[in-house]
Amino acid sequence: MWDYDSCLLACLPGSLESVNNGRITMSQERVQRIITQSQDQSRSSGPQLRRTSSFDRTWEDRRPVAESVANELGALLEASKEKINEAISTKLGIDFTSGLISIADFGCSTGPNTFAAVQTVIDAVEHKYQKDIEFQVFFNDSSNNDFNTLFRTLPPARRYFATGVPGSFFGRVLPKNSFHVGVASFALHFVSKIPKGVRERHSPVWNKDIHCTGFSKEVANLYLDQYKIDVGSFLNARAQELVSGGLLLFLGHCLPNGVQMSETVNGMMIDITGFSLNEIAKKGLIDQEKLDAFKLPVYLAHADELKRIIENNKCFRTEVFEKISHSKEEYQIDSDYLTVAFKVTVGGSVASYFGEDVMEKTYEIVREKTQELLPQIANAKPGMQYLIVLRKT
Amino acid sequence: MWDYDSCLLACLPGSLESVNNGRITMSQERVQRIITQSQDQSRSSGPQLRRTSSFDRTWEDRRPVAESVANELGALLEASKEKINEAISTKLGIDFTSGLISIADFGCSTGPNTFAAVQTVIDAVEHKYQKDIEFQVFFNDSSNNDFNTLFRTLPPARRYFATGVPGSFFGRVLPKNSFHVGVASFALHFVSKIPKGVRERHSPVWNKDIHCTGFSKEVANLYLDQYKIDVGSFLNARAQELVSGGLLLFLGHCLPNGVQMSETVNGMMIDITGFSLNEIAKKGLIDQEKLDAFKLPVYLAHADELKRIIENNKCFRTEVFEKISHSKEEYQIDSDYLTVAFKVTVGGSVASYFGEDVMEKTYEIVREKTQELLPQIANAKPGMQYLIVLRKT
Repeated sequence: MWDYDSCLLACLPGSLESVNNGRITMSQERVQRIITQSQDQSRSSGPQLRRTSSFDRTWEDRRPVAESVANELGALLEASKEKINEAISTKLGIDFTSGLISIADFGCSTGPNTFAAVQTVIDAVEHKYQKDIEFQVFFNDSSNNDFNTLFRTLPPARRYFATGVPGSFFGRVLPKNSFHVGVASFALHFVSKIPKGVRERHSPVWNKDIHCTGFSKEVANLYLDQYKIDVGSFLNARAQELVSGGLLLFLGHCLPNGVQMSETVNGMMIDITGFSLNEIAKKGLIDQEKLDAFKLPVYLAHADELKRIIENNKCFRTEVFEKISHSKEEYQIDSDYLTVAFKVTVGGSVASYFGEDVMEKTYEIVREKTQELLPQIANAKPGMQYLIVLRKT
Repeated sequence: MWDYDSCLLACLPGSLESVNNGRITMSQERVQRIITQSQDQSRSSGPQLRRTSSFDRTWEDRRPVAESVANELGALLEASKEKINEAISTKLGIDFTSGLISIADFGCSTGPNTFAAVQTVIDAVEHKYQKDIEFQVFFNDSSNNDFNTLFRTLPPARRYFATGVPGSFFGRVLPKNSFHVGVASFALHFVSKIPKGVRERHSPVWNKDIHCTGFSKEVANLYLDQYKIDVGSFLNARAQELVSGGLLLFLGHCLPNGVQMSETVNGMMIDITGFSLNEIAKKGLIDQEKLDAFKLPVYLAHADELKRIIENNKCFRTEVFEKISHSKEEYQIDSDYLTVAFKVTVGGSVASYFGEDVMEKTYEIVREKTQELLPQIANAKPGMQYLIVLRKT
């Protein structure tokens, strides 16, 4: 048993072309698609199941992994519930003579977790005010999000008016003073673009890895600079949209101070993905130059970095900044499990950049390499999940 | 040249299963699909074009008709613009100390006309108040609407925050007092369900026609009863959602007093569709019982009926109830044109109920029958298009 936090992974972008909002979107869609495929295909007769390698087992085998990755996304929320209730009870200080409370979910994605986050807030607000309140929920995500699915899967017994808000959360998406509580789950570890020079093979700051491993200080600083701009843009937009006394809740993932990305399981597995893509390039199946430009638009800040960026924005007061532990942080070491978990998540980006075939082949190599490196993975350093609550001053 | 108002047709439901909102949705999607197919297929080489009959010409032939039907939807709006400006200028009486004006489009569909309607309102409001205003637009339609397309085709230079609101406009979809001006284009001629008994072959009030022709008083009264309930539900929901002094604008289609549906071109063409479906049933290609239950969920009220239903709802004062004439009411008599126009619109319902193949075959017969009946169609009675403006008292 070791610390394996799949939540980051479940939030990696499904497409490098659409990274302007929380990419939990793409990955959850992917999880859902895999679960659905699993269900559909398990209803089919045996010969229809794809068995292209020893790794590529039946979908019925994979299904529990995909579901587990999806379920783990809710675990942080569940573990944070009490603190969210407390924050809303003691820190939310709004005037709502209109009888309406508006909740916004930024980077809402599709799927049950977005509804669960919103419901947690609504329950807490109802408990606090004990009045007859109408709720409106703004589900925001990029216009590439599948709002059709979101709308068709809204909880039938919901007690709120649902609305979808398309647009990048790095900019304004709602009118001034138009919501009372905002939620962003696994949204604050994306950068809106890859820092200049990092993609170009002949640039002096080219990053040979497909993400920010943390070992090159120069590359890490470039990612951090972009990250500061992006989090700043997010907070400035929300500062205009949120009513005075309203709250912003962030659930997400960062690095403990002093820990580098590639010292964690997440970082190691992304490194293995990068290694495997290089093997594919060596075989001539993908263009090395194209691979050299493939970078995940993710930056996991260290806890203190994130704290400082938030504090530097004077529109909000930090009410809560806490590490959250929960029961689903620990997993068995199992190369098949890890490979499928990362295929479900990071695989989406690989597939949209290189195509499904390359992705499939890549994850065959990932599995072998993961098996080989299991002892190192077992000794990986833990990541950190957080609940952050900000109050608009 | 004769009075041919295709706007009703363009609003007929694409699917009988989803009739709870303005079905301009389905039909416009269909128009767009046909235009797109036309574009795609016209790029292909000749042999790929489908030529199954003398009627079934190339898509390049059909394209102008499909575009014309789509464009005509905007003609009523254009012709109403001045009256809308005047109504907003003189009748809109709202307090907006918040600096925010919210516009709602009920039964928004997808496509350029929904954006045009909203923009007309925004321009008029800006002209009236000459202040720095933020606008939020609620685009409402049933959760079956293609909001993904709606969001991806939003005008890039829009000056409003766009939101999608899924749900039937016969019920509440927004919080109390949450919008200032509402628009519903071609939404008020649908019934939420087919009146009891009308579908059942052995019922004493079974309607042998696929719509309410107006010639059976008994059937017409059943449709009218359902229509009263539905318009009442619509108005009651809006009365709660609209701020006091706010306006509701309806653009749409009804029957002039004394004119029966089947005396108009629209009615005649739907009758021809029904006739053709019966021919198909006689050939054994569709089940007669299934056809007997096929009814379009449309009721075109007479102007006075609609006026009375609205007046009976005490939450609104009727400020404008006007017949609108515009340049695109007159068309050439042409059986190909008419057939394609109705295939683009009513064909959607036929296809979703009986399948694409049956629909194609049906419209081959429609064309022949239309050709045969052209003299009668040329003598059809005109319909009526309206602008209605209601103010919340």
